[in-house]
Amino acid sequence: MHLVLRKSNEVKRTVSQLWNQCLRMKSTDTRRKRLILLGTGWASYSVLKSIDKSKYDVIVVSPRNHFLFTPLLCSTTVGTLEFRSIIEPIRNLGFRQTDHFHLSWAESLDFSRQILHCQSVLKPDLKYELLYDKIVIGVGALNNTFGVPGVSEYAFFLKEVADARKIRNRILNNFELSIQPGIDELESKRLLHTIIVGGGPTGIEFGAELYDFVEQDVTRLYKKKKDDVRVTLVESNQILSSFDERLRNFAERKIKERSGFNLLKDSVTSVSSDHVVLKSGKTLPCGLIVWSTGLAPRFFVVNLNVAKNARGQILTDRHLRILGDPSGNSYALGDCADIQDMPLPCTAQVAERQGRYLAEQLNGKGDGEPFKFTSMGMLAYIGQYQGLSDLPDFKLQGFPSWFLWRSAYLTRLGSWRLRMQVPLDWTKTLLFGRDVSRFE
Amino acid sequence: MHLVLRKSNEVKRTVSQLWNQCLRMKSTDTRRKRLILLGTGWASYSVLKSIDKSKYDVIVVSPRNHFLFTPLLCSTTVGTLEFRSIIEPIRNLGFRQTDHFHLSWAESLDFSRQILHCQSVLKPDLKYELLYDKIVIGVGALNNTFGVPGVSEYAFFLKEVADARKIRNRILNNFELSIQPGIDELESKRLLHTIIVGGGPTGIEFGAELYDFVEQDVTRLYKKKKDDVRVTLVESNQILSSFDERLRNFAERKIKERSGFNLLKDSVTSVSSDHVVLKSGKTLPCGLIVWSTGLAPRFFVVNLNVAKNARGQILTDRHLRILGDPSGNSYALGDCADIQDMPLPCTAQVAERQGRYLAEQLNGKGDGEPFKFTSMGMLAYIGQYQGLSDLPDFKLQGFPSWFLWRSAYLTRLGSWRLRMQVPLDWTKTLLFGRDVSRFE
Repeated sequence: MHLVLRKSNEVKRTVSQLWNQCLRMKSTDTRRKRLILLGTGWASYSVLKSIDKSKYDVIVVSPRNHFLFTPLLCSTTVGTLEFRSIIEPIRNLGFRQTDHFHLSWAESLDFSRQILHCQSVLKPDLKYELLYDKIVIGVGALNNTFGVPGVSEYAFFLKEVADARKIRNRILNNFELSIQPGIDELESKRLLHTIIVGGGPTGIEFGAELYDFVEQDVTRLYKKKKDDVRVTLVESNQILSSFDERLRNFAERKIKERSGFNLLKDSVTSVSSDHVVLKSGKTLPCGLIVWSTGLAPRFFVVNLNVAKNARGQILTDRHLRILGDPSGNSYALGDCADIQDMPLPCTAQVAERQGRYLAEQLNGKGDGEPFKFTSMGMLAYIGQYQGLSDLPDFKLQGFPSWFLWRSAYLTRLGSWRLRMQVPLDWTKTLLFGRDVSRFE
Repeated sequence: MHLVLRKSNEVKRTVSQLWNQCLRMKSTDTRRKRLILLGTGWASYSVLKSIDKSKYDVIVVSPRNHFLFTPLLCSTTVGTLEFRSIIEPIRNLGFRQTDHFHLSWAESLDFSRQILHCQSVLKPDLKYELLYDKIVIGVGALNNTFGVPGVSEYAFFLKEVADARKIRNRILNNFELSIQPGIDELESKRLLHTIIVGGGPTGIEFGAELYDFVEQDVTRLYKKKKDDVRVTLVESNQILSSFDERLRNFAERKIKERSGFNLLKDSVTSVSSDHVVLKSGKTLPCGLIVWSTGLAPRFFVVNLNVAKNARGQILTDRHLRILGDPSGNSYALGDCADIQDMPLPCTAQVAERQGRYLAEQLNGKGDGEPFKFTSMGMLAYIGQYQGLSDLPDFKLQGFPSWFLWRSAYLTRLGSWRLRMQVPLDWTKTLLFGRDVSRFE
């Protein structure tokens, strides 16, 4: 029995070795070099769209099989847009071979032997290796909890569609529960109090969508509860700190005017299932906590043995080559990376532009010039059909800016499928209101 | 301390009693009688749409806050239609007061005192009572597992949107996993083998949608794996037994022609996470099991102390009044009920017609005549743009019947929102293919 087991283990090992051998072989296609892309966010998606597939045998490794149009994610938390209206399956980009997309985590990287170690998302004990000629790291970042106790357990983030889905379900649950018999006024007020931690664009835009939902749909569907709704935005510094002062003040004034909306200059010291505690000592009971305070490096990046900046981002030169890898075959871009002596904000715009630049360089069509970035400006939605446009040549606020916000994003959507669905969702919301159906 | 606690408990009790008192009071509106509707399926939704709200103070109690257009549910399992394109929030029906919809389970019913005992879906320890003048029971039914071991744990049902969502996620997971390195051919074939138990319209239509997905999208996105896909439909009797023989034979021939598709005249004796065992002794490894073999009564109906038929359905007279309740103030209809000596199939058509009939009677506009039912016929989709139409005056099969299937359902959709979205989803699927993005 023992022998049989050992025998069977040996056979397994041999099969596994053969398999690894086979995988670790470089691309069988001798004309093309194998390029591995890590991630499916703005940075990697942008490389993938522009890379010359006749020159590279491209393999994408990511725990997410779709691209997400993040600037519109907040709209899905209340149903202004539907989840699938802002995502695009990676497989639609037409790989030559089906198995060139891997739904896997990148575990670790051996720069000297040019081997990537992967772990399947769907079967965690399935681990394998991939050899590469070139590798592009665009894995993005995680939310930064700053070590505040309770955040990982009880707060909601806003990075993925799954996060938005959880928030939408929680909001609908809170409204349905608040009107049930046996729920007293205090409990109802707790349930309908939402705390947003972080006054960056994500926090502000989530608050804006929530405000629209309350004004346009709660008044219609949960009328009795409208006065119980409160939203508190906690930010220790300024809101929208990267925006022009005039626009920032405009946003602040608008938000403060809203009944039930509150801006608190404070910070959170602990989070619980039904309340948060602030640095000032105050305790705020609440039914939903949305946390959007900044970025932290992913596990894969933390484990990577290369030069990094103080925030844990991978340092690159101005050609986006990883500084710590002398081979020159590895690149990093987007939120997980930082160009030495050229600090750039962690935005979709930077990531996308870097992706396009890198693809051009890899295609051999770039002129070898280093990456340059001039901001096209920033847009934000603040609710009530009001927007902020902080553009290089002019600043715009209010309704015209909202119109610009919608049009700009519409033209930036990655495919005709999305460009068809998004305006239809907007129309549906306008005509029929948001869908408050609740299902798991 | 002890005294304080006792005191506080007393206060709690008093509050709770007052609250119950208040709830148990009949409608404060003396002109209107309080009508409680249980459920939000075809039967109850149909009553709700037609009831005269100037005569009745309507309260809906249901664990689901939306109506689901069940005939198109199978289309959402592969993304031909999106989930929210076939559901309609109950609150959109314009209640006068927000709290007239309760997201709660009906627990038990006291016919003599006319009290309904409810339990909140969102907070299980929240229980309360509602008094009624009239009550309509349209709670539907559960899937019947026939006591086969493993079904509840490992098989997927197809009754709710949440079920369809689980199936869609499982299908996408299976395809993504099947092409990963380290998955051998045997395992890949297991993952891509779907077993459908039950050859009624749901089983057949799910198979049809799966077939379309394989032909139209798998060939495009998971090409390498197309030949590994297999579907086995297990049915101990005839498929589509309620349909005309010619149509049935047509469907059977069509299904058998499909490569990878198989009809088995057998029954399932046990279900496991990765295989099913058949009565014939065969073991079939598989990656997905969809169970649609018949109906069983819900817990609430099982506990109801009234006359029932052999299948556990509530017996009513021809005016849909519950036989076991002499007050004449309680009604039952749809899948949870059976009219004595007038057996009708458990279909959406019957439930909807009963709902309309009952609303008319309650509104006082009915002529007091008993319920009559003449079938408008049956429709089914069998894939490849082929349908079956079993109508009173003619039988139709193939493409024209598919066209009829789509048009008929389109006109039956409950709201303009759905009538706008469903054809758009069809167009998107036709133009861009189905969305294979996977998220929790």
